[in-house]
Amino acid sequence: MSSVEHFFKSGIIESDIYGAYEAIIEESSSGDIGYYTLPEDMATLNEIKDFCANYDFEAIKNVVVIGIGGSSLGTKAIDHMLSHTENRNDKNLIFMENVDPNEIERNLKDVKFEESFFIMISKSGGTIETTSHVKYIVDKYGISFEDAAFVKHFAIITDPLSPLDKFAKDFALTTFHLPLNVGGRFSIFTPVGLLPLRILGYDVDKLLQGARELKKSFFDKHEDTMIQKAYYYANNQERLPINVLFSYSSSFKYFNDWYVQLWGESLGKINRDGNRVGLTPIGIVGSVDQHSFLQLIIEGPQNKTVTMIKVEDFENEMMIPDVTIPHLEKTNFINNHSFNTLINAQCDATMQSIKDQGVDVDSITLPRLDEHTAGGMIMYYELLTSITGYFLNVNTYDQPGVELGKVILKEKFEK
Amino acid sequence: MSSVEHFFKSGIIESDIYGAYEAIIEESSSGDIGYYTLPEDMATLNEIKDFCANYDFEAIKNVVVIGIGGSSLGTKAIDHMLSHTENRNDKNLIFMENVDPNEIERNLKDVKFEESFFIMISKSGGTIETTSHVKYIVDKYGISFEDAAFVKHFAIITDPLSPLDKFAKDFALTTFHLPLNVGGRFSIFTPVGLLPLRILGYDVDKLLQGARELKKSFFDKHEDTMIQKAYYYANNQERLPINVLFSYSSSFKYFNDWYVQLWGESLGKINRDGNRVGLTPIGIVGSVDQHSFLQLIIEGPQNKTVTMIKVEDFENEMMIPDVTIPHLEKTNFINNHSFNTLINAQCDATMQSIKDQGVDVDSITLPRLDEHTAGGMIMYYELLTSITGYFLNVNTYDQPGVELGKVILKEKFEK
Repeated sequence: MSSVEHFFKSGIIESDIYGAYEAIIEESSSGDIGYYTLPEDMATLNEIKDFCANYDFEAIKNVVVIGIGGSSLGTKAIDHMLSHTENRNDKNLIFMENVDPNEIERNLKDVKFEESFFIMISKSGGTIETTSHVKYIVDKYGISFEDAAFVKHFAIITDPLSPLDKFAKDFALTTFHLPLNVGGRFSIFTPVGLLPLRILGYDVDKLLQGARELKKSFFDKHEDTMIQKAYYYANNQERLPINVLFSYSSSFKYFNDWYVQLWGESLGKINRDGNRVGLTPIGIVGSVDQHSFLQLIIEGPQNKTVTMIKVEDFENEMMIPDVTIPHLEKTNFINNHSFNTLINAQCDATMQSIKDQGVDVDSITLPRLDEHTAGGMIMYYELLTSITGYFLNVNTYDQPGVELGKVILKEKFEK
Repeated sequence: MSSVEHFFKSGIIESDIYGAYEAIIEESSSGDIGYYTLPEDMATLNEIKDFCANYDFEAIKNVVVIGIGGSSLGTKAIDHMLSHTENRNDKNLIFMENVDPNEIERNLKDVKFEESFFIMISKSGGTIETTSHVKYIVDKYGISFEDAAFVKHFAIITDPLSPLDKFAKDFALTTFHLPLNVGGRFSIFTPVGLLPLRILGYDVDKLLQGARELKKSFFDKHEDTMIQKAYYYANNQERLPINVLFSYSSSFKYFNDWYVQLWGESLGKINRDGNRVGLTPIGIVGSVDQHSFLQLIIEGPQNKTVTMIKVEDFENEMMIPDVTIPHLEKTNFINNHSFNTLINAQCDATMQSIKDQGVDVDSITLPRLDEHTAGGMIMYYELLTSITGYFLNVNTYDQPGVELGKVILKEKFEK
């Protein structure tokens, strides 16, 4: 896929590389952790494609994803990365995530029920935000679960045999299952991502293909740069507790958010030795954040690594025209160059200025933004997270720390 | 304004509080740093109001702010905080920030020149993103600087006597000045923020009033909690290098971004003792980010402080209706409560779960979201930044670290 360059030495020895490969190969072949094999799951892909081919989406203007965290971030990431591509149709994609009433109102302002396709996503069905949204929606539109309109306009994505699955079965709703061994933040290549992305017109085959190729390249042991990076990050987590993703395109805005969840929630743990470990993810966008966060990277404490993401070809010829603004002639050096050239030159110049400070930098360059490279990027970061979790000796796939708040919340209302 | 609670002990002694007050009073009265007196600048406020009263904004559908960093983040923050309020009219607010060609295309897709009011903002005029956008716009719409349409539809905000100011003068453009002693990230109460916000219908008097009251309360020495917090953050910057703002409303999404710039760029510095200092800001939104970042706060390394922001009254009565989803009856505890109640209960429960881990937490509760509380919040964080900069012994108001990248960029093109 993309080219990767590291500008720091990991200090890893051969046997540690070997050990990490063995651990990840074992984890992926054990069947305990299911995300590794999702790019090969053609049965689910075909189920999604068949459903989309047989459903009349002509009259559907809005795709409303009701889900939070891992149920929304991946779809949002990929749609924003690829929204300028020609595959994308003109349906609105709306996310019901927060329980902020003003946001809910804004989200549904122009949404008519019969023009919309709602996808309710929850592994168990117990997510309080998601159920509250569904209750509000059926009440607002005066729909009951028995109505044919409800059955037609709602789909459910959940674990097999979960309470939500039973609800879906009782009312004969369109249902897609999440594999039990795939957690929310690793679920983009399940129906969680594939269903909405397919409805929006994206080439989901190519998405999985990109993921497969990245994965193959790793398991063929051609990607030990990933192991080196994971090793370095894990071993320097006290000195370098912050990992900045500096993405040079606005298209990565929500990819950054997806990365923040994946990295933060997977690695921030009390590990198997009883120690608090973890790495703090930060996602920023260039060139915009040269004007906000860069100063801190350059002159602040050297407690950060930085990964630059660059898109070689934006597939957009837009030029900075040969216009002179009187008194601002010194900006003319950029005239007659493309915006594509400008943003990439900014990326290179910023990277140089960061490296000059001795900050540990690596870069990932994508040839272009399409389903193929997007699928590869998702798989790259999922694998990197798994390897880093191995070195940190954590359970990468659970999130025990968020349970307490849920218990306290429930107690507040039951008192 | 709002109520503030600290759940940690700062350990500050009386003489340090006194010293900080003295330093900030001296800085604000010296005239070197101009942001302190902006809320009292009625001349500028009236200039803006007069302009808006005399310009025919009827036919204007789009307000296009061409500016980056401090020229856009403040306006975006306040508009997003208040976009649900009744003062906000229905004009589109569009920001030309990044030089990503796909974003530029998306931004201008439905923009007709004669329906739009463009505001070009740059202290010097040399910002390469901003000038490139302006060149692209005049070329795209076939406008020349001499045209009456250009003069009518463009306004300039810049430093007095800057190259951009000279350009504006040559073509008799509507011009507002930034005070020379106010930097971009502290400029929201200058025309940078006041002009677009007034055009969008906001009550800018009330915005400044909120800022004035917060400021008065500080200078009347009723806000030494701010000094305590700044002292604690500065003195523990090595142990606690990360300051998380956990805002419980989607309305704060861009306030968080504004905070990130203000905090990161002001404090990340080589200080007067020659040491690299700084604090890494992170902005997250509840309840959404309970499902992404919370796990890391709860179980990860204890290297973070957390500030919870809560809105008491969303002024929106939206209820979770009394609907039972079969098999999901355990979510019924929330039925017949408002979304307002739910999100605030989540904020309280999450705060409790974070405090229980021994994390240093404080909370800011706003009675509601309006111009008055928004103005107060901006002033609170500006003052907090100044005080923290005092304790870190940095120049809070410059950004020398971003210059090198600009030089390298220019060299790339001149070679």
